[in-house]
Amino acid sequence: MVEINADRLLTTLRRLREFGATGTGVVRPTLSAVDMAARRWLAQRMADAGLDARIDGVGTLLGRSRRAGKAMLIGSHSDTQPRGGWLDGAMGVVYAIEIAHSLAEHADTAAFAVDAASWSDEEGSYFGFLGSRSFCGESMEHAIEQARNDKGERLAEAIAAAGLSHEPPHRLEPGRYLGYLEPHIEQGGVLEAAGQRIGVVTHIVGMRDFTIEITGRQNHAGTTPMRLRRDAGAAAIRLGNAIQSTMAGVAGPQSVWTIGRMSFDPGAPSIIPGRATFNQQVRDVEAGRLEAMEAHVRGLVAEAARAGPCGVAIVPSKDAVEPAAMDSGFQDALAAAAERHVPGGWRRMPSGAGHDAQVLARRMPAGMLFVPSIGGVSHDFAEDTSDEDIVLGCQVLATAAASILAAARGR
Amino acid sequence: MVEINADRLLTTLRRLREFGATGTGVVRPTLSAVDMAARRWLAQRMADAGLDARIDGVGTLLGRSRRAGKAMLIGSHSDTQPRGGWLDGAMGVVYAIEIAHSLAEHADTAAFAVDAASWSDEEGSYFGFLGSRSFCGESMEHAIEQARNDKGERLAEAIAAAGLSHEPPHRLEPGRYLGYLEPHIEQGGVLEAAGQRIGVVTHIVGMRDFTIEITGRQNHAGTTPMRLRRDAGAAAIRLGNAIQSTMAGVAGPQSVWTIGRMSFDPGAPSIIPGRATFNQQVRDVEAGRLEAMEAHVRGLVAEAARAGPCGVAIVPSKDAVEPAAMDSGFQDALAAAAERHVPGGWRRMPSGAGHDAQVLARRMPAGMLFVPSIGGVSHDFAEDTSDEDIVLGCQVLATAAASILAAARGR
Repeated sequence: MVEINADRLLTTLRRLREFGATGTGVVRPTLSAVDMAARRWLAQRMADAGLDARIDGVGTLLGRSRRAGKAMLIGSHSDTQPRGGWLDGAMGVVYAIEIAHSLAEHADTAAFAVDAASWSDEEGSYFGFLGSRSFCGESMEHAIEQARNDKGERLAEAIAAAGLSHEPPHRLEPGRYLGYLEPHIEQGGVLEAAGQRIGVVTHIVGMRDFTIEITGRQNHAGTTPMRLRRDAGAAAIRLGNAIQSTMAGVAGPQSVWTIGRMSFDPGAPSIIPGRATFNQQVRDVEAGRLEAMEAHVRGLVAEAARAGPCGVAIVPSKDAVEPAAMDSGFQDALAAAAERHVPGGWRRMPSGAGHDAQVLARRMPAGMLFVPSIGGVSHDFAEDTSDEDIVLGCQVLATAAASILAAARGR
Repeated sequence: MVEINADRLLTTLRRLREFGATGTGVVRPTLSAVDMAARRWLAQRMADAGLDARIDGVGTLLGRSRRAGKAMLIGSHSDTQPRGGWLDGAMGVVYAIEIAHSLAEHADTAAFAVDAASWSDEEGSYFGFLGSRSFCGESMEHAIEQARNDKGERLAEAIAAAGLSHEPPHRLEPGRYLGYLEPHIEQGGVLEAAGQRIGVVTHIVGMRDFTIEITGRQNHAGTTPMRLRRDAGAAAIRLGNAIQSTMAGVAGPQSVWTIGRMSFDPGAPSIIPGRATFNQQVRDVEAGRLEAMEAHVRGLVAEAARAGPCGVAIVPSKDAVEPAAMDSGFQDALAAAAERHVPGGWRRMPSGAGHDAQVLARRMPAGMLFVPSIGGVSHDFAEDTSDEDIVLGCQVLATAAASILAAARGR
């Protein structure tokens, strides 16, 4: 059995945390100077582990094994949310390097091929899943030209500033991989509440996200009688309430629906809003359920538009993400490894958040492993996981990866 | 009968428009360099009209008549909204100067005393009704120390930068005034829709404005099950909808209620809002009705706080403004003048917007006259009124002022 090096794992992870450290959190925006510095440092760690590492034209760092035979691809992302935690993404990248390194160090597994990846922009600062989509063969030319971050900076300029404009993309090499494994913090409180330490992911939920725009007529809130108003704010509140108060009727037990953003224009107490905008997001693990939730939103929007007095438009605000099932063989390998290292202390569970694994799952078998998030917190400076859980997660994944690689070689 | 000088009126008004002109609008923030330049220029026009003009320590420009006998005070404000129209406030100040000037030029009215005022900060860039409240005897020391504009600049610093720190305040001189008249654009579409040209104001509505703050728990919109959420955005939408869908039950025929601002924190599609804030404003001409509307809002807030799962707090966000009745004698004088110059083409109506007249009305008889707003638009660069209506309004007010002044002298 392969044994990981817990000290090296934690040391590498803590050193990576220093790139963009801000209080207990990390600010390491995609393709920023500090993100590039972290990627270059990680490329050195990949080289230490025997991998051939290169950053490509969209920022993905891929460390390729020099071993023959089918490889296991393991990865996540080392860039962060605008105000992110230290583990979201980073932990998975460091696991990948540690597993490549420790497998190479053990005689039984030294011939196994493990590639390690840090995908670019999973979080969508410019364009969600930029790195893994590019790797899977999507042309990113249009996105590179058009995509901008919240500050209005173009992705093309960020790539140029990072010195990557002339780097060719990493592309999936047909036949190279047994599959993809992505370790990640849970980002919810399910494991902690259950007193469990490992989650074996069954599905990654699909998502629909809509921007709903309401157009009324801006006017003075004192001098405009109620009967003459076309109040975009009032219409947004009415429609938002109609959606959120009826969604349970079409939702399933694992569905979630969220209005994360609502704003009125011009947004002053004495002015009737002329425009209002909100986002309605829905998620579910079943494609049919997701369709039904979308249809419900669209139906209520159409009803509001018919009823007036404001105009109502609905625009899908991101590409729809289809639910992705994790490979059942990989689930079983992860479950067996978890049961071995922490008997009874693991569960199968869906992922409510999106991950690069859902992109990779379209092209190869994919699996995901979760470790507990303290207090269920993520996307926040307070995000954390105990050292014991970090080490255990890496050990479970190493065991599972080794067992899959061994099985492929007929051992 | 006094006759105003229409050319002089329009020339003065157009020249004033040049101070801070921005497209068809005007940007002349309270106590800014351009506001002070406009006030100094208006002080010259007051001097031309025979008035003794001075800018006081909060920015109010008052031109005092040198005539003996009780005076009519006429005024409005020459500073603007952040992106204001050219007539809101400015027109009333120029009317006041023109009426003082034309009364002085006519033998019948040359002995009549008219004071002209441009109050400071009616719109509340720093502190609403700053000038008229100071004039009516309120101590502004605390406001001067504490008040800040949207950019965080302190009122005390703006006063110092304007060179006014050592100017004593203008104060209402007991026994000096017959009353106060304020001419203004309507800021609504009632006159235009009715094809009428003059509004005689009966009341200025009272207002209550509340900031409602909702505290939940920020979390990931994908990984947090519905049953575990404390979604501040969802709670804000539910409460806002409850208020706006039931207010008609306690409101009167002239009540208005508005949610002009709603925002979620952090306000991203994939994050359950941890905090949400909105403003609920209510206005009515009857004090009792206003109380009932406030009680209704507070009742629904308390119910939402009890029901949970989010915390709900309500904070009055501005001083409550009580409804102010206009003097019935002044209303009759304005009505008689309107009927003389435009028979059948005027109406009595409330003012839905706040004006300095509601402050002055606590200390002396007050009246207001409206001219039509094209398209009902105000607080916008597109704000406008036809030249004919501008001239007519000034003529009607001059006739009414002269008749009140004449009656006071027993003529």
